[in-house]
Amino acid sequence: MRNVAVLGIGQIKIGEHWERSLREIGGDAALAAMQDAGLEKVDALFVGNMLSPVVSAQNQLGAFFADWIGMWKQEAVKIEAACASGGAAFRSALMAVASGDVESALVLGVEKMTDKAGHDVTAALATAADADYELEQGISFVGINALVMRRYMHEFGWKHEDFAQFSINAHANAMHNPYARLHEKITLEKFEKSSMISTPINLLDASPTGDGAAAMIIVPAEKVARQPRITVAASASATDTIAVHSRKDPMFLQAAYQSSKRAYEMAGLTPADIDFFELHDAFSIMAALSLEASGFAERGQGVRLALDNEIHIQGRVPVCTRGGLKARGHPVGATGVYQLVEIVQQLRGECGKTQVNDAHIGMAQNIGGSGATILTHILRNDV
Amino acid sequence: MRNVAVLGIGQIKIGEHWERSLREIGGDAALAAMQDAGLEKVDALFVGNMLSPVVSAQNQLGAFFADWIGMWKQEAVKIEAACASGGAAFRSALMAVASGDVESALVLGVEKMTDKAGHDVTAALATAADADYELEQGISFVGINALVMRRYMHEFGWKHEDFAQFSINAHANAMHNPYARLHEKITLEKFEKSSMISTPINLLDASPTGDGAAAMIIVPAEKVARQPRITVAASASATDTIAVHSRKDPMFLQAAYQSSKRAYEMAGLTPADIDFFELHDAFSIMAALSLEASGFAERGQGVRLALDNEIHIQGRVPVCTRGGLKARGHPVGATGVYQLVEIVQQLRGECGKTQVNDAHIGMAQNIGGSGATILTHILRNDV
Repeated sequence: MRNVAVLGIGQIKIGEHWERSLREIGGDAALAAMQDAGLEKVDALFVGNMLSPVVSAQNQLGAFFADWIGMWKQEAVKIEAACASGGAAFRSALMAVASGDVESALVLGVEKMTDKAGHDVTAALATAADADYELEQGISFVGINALVMRRYMHEFGWKHEDFAQFSINAHANAMHNPYARLHEKITLEKFEKSSMISTPINLLDASPTGDGAAAMIIVPAEKVARQPRITVAASASATDTIAVHSRKDPMFLQAAYQSSKRAYEMAGLTPADIDFFELHDAFSIMAALSLEASGFAERGQGVRLALDNEIHIQGRVPVCTRGGLKARGHPVGATGVYQLVEIVQQLRGECGKTQVNDAHIGMAQNIGGSGATILTHILRNDV
Repeated sequence: MRNVAVLGIGQIKIGEHWERSLREIGGDAALAAMQDAGLEKVDALFVGNMLSPVVSAQNQLGAFFADWIGMWKQEAVKIEAACASGGAAFRSALMAVASGDVESALVLGVEKMTDKAGHDVTAALATAADADYELEQGISFVGINALVMRRYMHEFGWKHEDFAQFSINAHANAMHNPYARLHEKITLEKFEKSSMISTPINLLDASPTGDGAAAMIIVPAEKVARQPRITVAASASATDTIAVHSRKDPMFLQAAYQSSKRAYEMAGLTPADIDFFELHDAFSIMAALSLEASGFAERGQGVRLALDNEIHIQGRVPVCTRGGLKARGHPVGATGVYQLVEIVQQLRGECGKTQVNDAHIGMAQNIGGSGATILTHILRNDV
């Protein structure tokens, strides 16, 4: 494999962009990345998106966006792996550049979620679960996560408020991210009093969806003069059963374990080498499970890292340094690209009050469905 | 790039599989390919599919099928490029193996189209067009193709019956393909009397959709002992504007021209070297346009090849040797993989009465939307 580096990044603020269409928000992020990279054209476009066939009656987003941003004649394709679509699009682009067939690739994660009513979007999101064996029972996606969280609390003896620090940390970090959807500090009291969605998951355990788009340009590392040079140290993808009930242990993210293990091997690193971790906190329970399966905490002890303030910017394992899914927002198919863009910002030292000290190695983990598809990427700066 | 070869193929008969689900038809093709390859496991799965989010309320088909066929823990992802999803999935798999990161990949093209009413499927297929600027006018996908065909007939002076040989040839070849949806010889008279769908496209200009699944296993070429060894000589993908009305010349498949040009360069070949051509005859007009843009005929003269019998098995450019989209059937996201599977069958010499003589180099072209995404692949046997 050729060594690959990130040349440019772009993103838009996540929110309810009523006045702008799917093509406009995606185009803006893509062009911002091109501008940041100083490129006027790229060889290929890889779009990560989950919902556009259902929400926008639009398929073929590869050609759709290539057309909109003037990449006429170039290669373009869409990758879908539910909420892991962004990470999967990045990995597809990486393979194309690493193979030697493509010299520059644009990765675009984009999701327009506000063009349909809330219940329609809830139904669309549920397509990440097993249609025949989960959805047929009438369960929603938050419902599946609620079952896992309840079992975890029972099994390991945690109370609901023990999860609060995941959300408090994410909201605190998002205060300094202009692209974040939520700019609102929260407290333990607020967390405890928040409305219940699906017991035990309340509103402040759950990430807000929204319209969003983030983009990156990757090229062979030897072509990058820009300092610090940010290279892709590892990329790995793994799967688990699509339905949670099929797993021997529904509280262990097997695909996070597999993909992080492969990523550590590929990069020659251990969890102790990771300076910060952009994990997939779609629900607070997922933050705990991600930390455990990726080697940062023992089984059942992911919550302990939050309680001990180890996940803060100055902690042992800073997570959600730009707000995470919880407060930056979770435009599902775009999320994986936001995570990687944020890692680049940290590795460039552009994060101001939420800058991780001596940030040289960052890890992103992007989860599709209830842990069915999980990608782990490690980026590092070469300085 | 590492040299990559095809180790195994599998497919199911295209039809209306009321009694079988999406997972069952895809699983059957995937396992047939594994069996043909003599492998019990592969590193990664690449699924090509267009409609499952809308028709089956199922996303994340990578993990979905990895689970069903027992590829637990392995990488899996879905690629979508409308009716070019199958070819795009093959190219993604190729990049992964060519990069050196993946040692074996399963490509699965799958589409379950009969679980919804016909008008719902028509609406779902229209998501390949531009939702904002084409669909909003109420046009269907066949309507767009009808406009192109009518203009072509006007511009180049062809009559409707001049297109008949494309369909007659496809139906004749499908008689010898047990996996084809239609086993019915047609005549010029039948073609002319067929029901009109959208003037000038009648029922025998149009390919039938259906439930279908086809699969392939690819690995580094040096690992293949099996004879004849079938290698991937070229792979290229290109795009055009998503809406047909945005094109300077709606009768020229710019993306077919670009991707075939790159493919010829990559393989060091010219159109004259191609022994047979599995083109994307979703409508008879597309067969003509594909032949022209890929260098087999002058502008406006693709129809001439059909009239002169040059497209028959013993002709200068045999096309649709297993029935093409017209008679083998067009399960949209699966079609690109069917085309490649059929090329392997020809290169192995397994096609009996429709075997192309001295078949050493086969080309497949898979089209998404009205020519917005087009992939061209060239396979050859090393004997």
